[in-house]
Amino acid sequence: MPGVPPARYAYLGPEGTFAEAALRSIPAAQKGDLLAMPSVTAALDAVRRGDAAGAMVPIESSVEGSVAATLDELAVGDPLMVSREVLLPVSFALMARPGTGLHGVRRIASHPHANAQCRRWLALTMPEAEVVPALSTAAAAADAADPGSDVDAAIAAPIAAAHYRLEVLAEEIEDNPQAVTRFVLVRRPAEPPLPSGHDKTTLVAFIADDHPGALLEILTEFSVRGVNLTRIESRPTGQGIGRYCFSIDCEGHVDDTRVGEALMGLRRVCPDVRFLGSYPRADDSSPVAWARDDSTYRDAAAWLGRIRNGRV
Amino acid sequence: MPGVPPARYAYLGPEGTFAEAALRSIPAAQKGDLLAMPSVTAALDAVRRGDAAGAMVPIESSVEGSVAATLDELAVGDPLMVSREVLLPVSFALMARPGTGLHGVRRIASHPHANAQCRRWLALTMPEAEVVPALSTAAAAADAADPGSDVDAAIAAPIAAAHYRLEVLAEEIEDNPQAVTRFVLVRRPAEPPLPSGHDKTTLVAFIADDHPGALLEILTEFSVRGVNLTRIESRPTGQGIGRYCFSIDCEGHVDDTRVGEALMGLRRVCPDVRFLGSYPRADDSSPVAWARDDSTYRDAAAWLGRIRNGRV
Amino acid sequence: MPGVPPARYAYLGPEGTFAEAALRSIPAAQKGDLLAMPSVTAALDAVRRGDAAGAMVPIESSVEGSVAATLDELAVGDPLMVSREVLLPVSFALMARPGTGLHGVRRIASHPHANAQCRRWLALTMPEAEVVPALSTAAAAADAADPGSDVDAAIAAPIAAAHYRLEVLAEEIEDNPQAVTRFVLVRRPAEPPLPSGHDKTTLVAFIADDHPGALLEILTEFSVRGVNLTRIESRPTGQGIGRYCFSIDCEGHVDDTRVGEALMGLRRVCPDVRFLGSYPRADDSSPVAWARDDSTYRDAAAWLGRIRNGRV
Amino acid sequence: MPGVPPARYAYLGPEGTFAEAALRSIPAAQKGDLLAMPSVTAALDAVRRGDAAGAMVPIESSVEGSVAATLDELAVGDPLMVSREVLLPVSFALMARPGTGLHGVRRIASHPHANAQCRRWLALTMPEAEVVPALSTAAAAADAADPGSDVDAAIAAPIAAAHYRLEVLAEEIEDNPQAVTRFVLVRRPAEPPLPSGHDKTTLVAFIADDHPGALLEILTEFSVRGVNLTRIESRPTGQGIGRYCFSIDCEGHVDDTRVGEALMGLRRVCPDVRFLGSYPRADDSSPVAWARDDSTYRDAAAWLGRIRNGRV
Repeated sequence: MPGVPPARYAYLGPEGTFAEAALRSIPAAQKGDLLAMPSVTAALDAVRRGDAAGAMVPIESSVEGSVAATLDELAVGDPLMVSREVLLPVSFALMARPGTGLHGVRRIASHPHANAQCRRWLALTMPEAEVVPALSTAAAAADAADPGSDVDAAIAAPIAAAHYRLEVLAEEIEDNPQAVTRFVLVRRPAEPPLPSGHDKTTLVAFIADDHPGALLEILTEFSVRGVNLTRIESRPTGQGIGRYCFSIDCEGHVDDTRVGEALMGLRRVCPDVRFLGSYPRADDSSPVAWARDDSTYRDAAAWLGRIRNGRV
Repeated sequence: MPGVPPARYAYLGPEGTFAEAALRSIPAAQKGDLLAMPSVTAALDAVRRGDAAGAMVPIESSVEGSVAATLDELAVGDPLMVSREVLLPVSFALMARPGTGLHGVRRIASHPHANAQCRRWLALTMPEAEVVPALSTAAAAADAADPGSDVDAAIAAPIAAAHYRLEVLAEEIEDNPQAVTRFVLVRRPAEPPLPSGHDKTTLVAFIADDHPGALLEILTEFSVRGVNLTRIESRPTGQGIGRYCFSIDCEGHVDDTRVGEALMGLRRVCPDVRFLGSYPRADDSSPVAWARDDSTYRDAAAWLGRIRNGRV
Repeated sequence: MPGVPPARYAYLGPEGTFAEAALRSIPAAQKGDLLAMPSVTAALDAVRRGDAAGAMVPIESSVEGSVAATLDELAVGDPLMVSREVLLPVSFALMARPGTGLHGVRRIASHPHANAQCRRWLALTMPEAEVVPALSTAAAAADAADPGSDVDAAIAAPIAAAHYRLEVLAEEIEDNPQAVTRFVLVRRPAEPPLPSGHDKTTLVAFIADDHPGALLEILTEFSVRGVNLTRIESRPTGQGIGRYCFSIDCEGHVDDTRVGEALMGLRRVCPDVRFLGSYPRADDSSPVAWARDDSTYRDAAAWLGRIRNGRV
Repeated sequence: MPGVPPARYAYLGPEGTFAEAALRSIPAAQKGDLLAMPSVTAALDAVRRGDAAGAMVPIESSVEGSVAATLDELAVGDPLMVSREVLLPVSFALMARPGTGLHGVRRIASHPHANAQCRRWLALTMPEAEVVPALSTAAAAADAADPGSDVDAAIAAPIAAAHYRLEVLAEEIEDNPQAVTRFVLVRRPAEPPLPSGHDKTTLVAFIADDHPGALLEILTEFSVRGVNLTRIESRPTGQGIGRYCFSIDCEGHVDDTRVGEALMGLRRVCPDVRFLGSYPRADDSSPVAWARDDSTYRDAAAWLGRIRNGRV
């Protein structure tokens, strides 16, 4: 459609890291302008300002730095919503300038987290190699690509090899082949995508005062409606020690009756609840079974209507 | 209004007992035909058959026999609903044929429950008197009224004195001046009376299978919505030992959002729930305070509507 | 053993009712003196005074009057303990003076509760018979045995036939063949019988103040330790409307670790807890399965000992 | 004492970061050898191998990288225990080579997290300055100290100024003056320090299977004993999506009865529980009030002993 510029998407940079790979896995982003941002905050602010239609940032990850930044940024400031999640296997490759070969590798650049996840492979395969820290796996790849640098190779995301014209010397060198990183595509508030039947909902619940049972009260609002949590994390609110909020992912969509009712329950017992979106879950695992699906809710509502009118 | 016969009301007889006094406290019944029935079952069946517009029966009482009959009759068979409750102080009088006088009393008839509640007074005031059991306090009064009987006096409800033309020798002879009996007016199912602001709701919840936490699950449906219980009793279902249902009174009206939601929650987790009515509570005690009144529910529902539409 | 008088046992009289049958089912009582008492209170007071070694009274029953008396008597006054329970099928017989025969029966005496439980049989078999109320099933049998009375037969417990030299005209005439009455043998406080592996524990828990969740708090103390309840009933404390205690039976023995811990938990959250005994359950149904038996408790305690000493 | 070498302590390096400052705040470490380690894993492994008596690592922080590394390292592998916690205000300074002055600053090195926390100050005070990412705040200080580098200043922990002979140009430039980072001193398993009266306990609880209520079950073990949580985080176990464990801090000491009982409860319902230490809390905030202190536990235990012996 002439005249309509392609959408711009921000991501946690630099180029050639897992966040870019996550973003490229989304059809809409494949034709868009992709902006590498220096931090999660910068990526989200680009969305807040309207400079980007969305931002792909990690939210639950053992690599690429802390996701606390994502959780905390979403919890405060201008509201944003998650519209999509992407699960990316955390797979690393050893890469070097063409012609280097495994035997030519003496110094390897990598981000400390990536290094930590390939320790066993390094100890077995390259016990003599020295590992040098880099700002990110992409920065490590850039270092390795620079003929003037003092490193011969990098441990990085596979996507970095093409970016920096490096040759992959070994693939899938990570110690734990099950590890995945979870990214979310964050947008400005909008009507959530329609329920897909296997959705997740993300939110932040603030508690009024800290007491034994405060968290229990919150969780009961979910469990009494048969809504399963898939992630929970207490986060300091920054208003002094002992002031917490809870960052929560649950199964289901805000349009599901049971999820809607649980959210209303939270809203009643918490001084503040921030809804952060409902979106299809990226894994194909079925939701945890429960006896309280929407038809059960409809039946109960119909029954209530009857008894309120004196029909039993 | 000519042509319209006065309504007929049944009550747990015989005449001159507390149930009649409870029924007579209701304006509608004061002009009606009052039918003394030999049992709770008979009184309720009169309503089921359409022979009576309502029946006044005890439901929570330390006198006049077991209320288990009421609970169990309401739990099964053709549905009935409670439309009103009456609290009657359990006050006893010693009464005798005119002219007898306290000193002439040697043998006193009474129902064992009534006798039990006046033990201290009897021991102090009439330690020599012999107490003879009767089928009911009214039967005791009838005995005392019969010049041919071998009893001189009766312990009975004050209302019995007029019925049997007896003279009250002593009033309020009960040991516990706080005791009350709770009666309910039961009708065929109909739209409940409008919420009065201080209502009660009665129901029976059946459990699917007996396990630690089955009752907890039921109670959580109430407590998570801030609904206070005022009575709970496990009752055998008659389908073998270990098969229970729960007879429950809670604060609030079925039309209250929080009560409606709790009832729907019960309906989802229980194989059967029988709604037995919402009605104004007879005591003037305010409901237990909670932070979750209907306006809180409305606010939460409005918020849910907004976030479902992407407005935050 | 010469010189040792047989123990005396009280029961809720009169002679020939189910309570006597329950008491006679206990070996110790078979050789003892059995005292029919006019009320539950009288039976329990006989134990309190030391006039009887024990008293057999109904606690959960659909016949023979209210068990509220038993619950309330045990909850206050000098402490007593249940040491045994007896389940008695609620079976009724129609009995008459020898030679009467079914066709000679025109008026039948019975206690209203017994009558209520045989309604269907009466309607089918003897639709013409008139039923006359009696003070108890035993009183009905006594009436029927009296040649001068105006009744021809009685509906009573089978045990009454021998007592009153009546002939059984029809057996098991009750409408619900599953119904049982539960009796308890109550003694003065003593070390409970040893755990049998399938025990019950009875107690009364008083609450400090009435609020949504007060009962939930009590029940959580049980469920978190995997202790199943078999009976619960809120009872007014007699100190004004809205003041409740809870009468509770749970599975297990006070010597079981999980039950002991639950009782200590109750003791911490309730202003008062009255322990009313642990005793073998009368039915042979196995306790509800749970993953938290005593060996699990021992393992956890051993583990705690280890970690407290820095061994993991 | 001649011949006894000073203890060695590892910390998350490099030198001049907050972890070193945290470690130096502990008397025992002030005389010890301090080892800067390249990663949390390396620091903890030094303890596991016996190369260090303890390691100071961040566990709950908004700076210096993810604490997920700490949580995950403590959850698996050879057991370790936390013996101490240190809270450090997250305070940043702008520092430069002596003589530079604020006006001479054009390019500022910093770790992205530190940069993020000083954004407002930077925008107000030095809107023209360019910020360049560094591997850590200490690396930023090292860069700034290097006359040959292309940066003029660094945002770093105050402790870095002395290390790198830099001049502090501005102090406390962080946007949120309340922010703190929580560090823990980790040792090999040993008897925990004695209860101080205001302690914390850290542990990891693994769940058997994911279902609505799994987390509720865990939390109930704490709340029913009046034990308050101060941090909770679900962590993937690395055994596939949907397999979680919970990293938990609670108030109290493993030697406290209520905490010991809660831990035993967890041990019974979880397939695995890893105890990670009890230690004095670093803040002086009193623990959340509860009605269930050790004396309440002792009273309840004494009562249980009495009723088990038939004394009431």
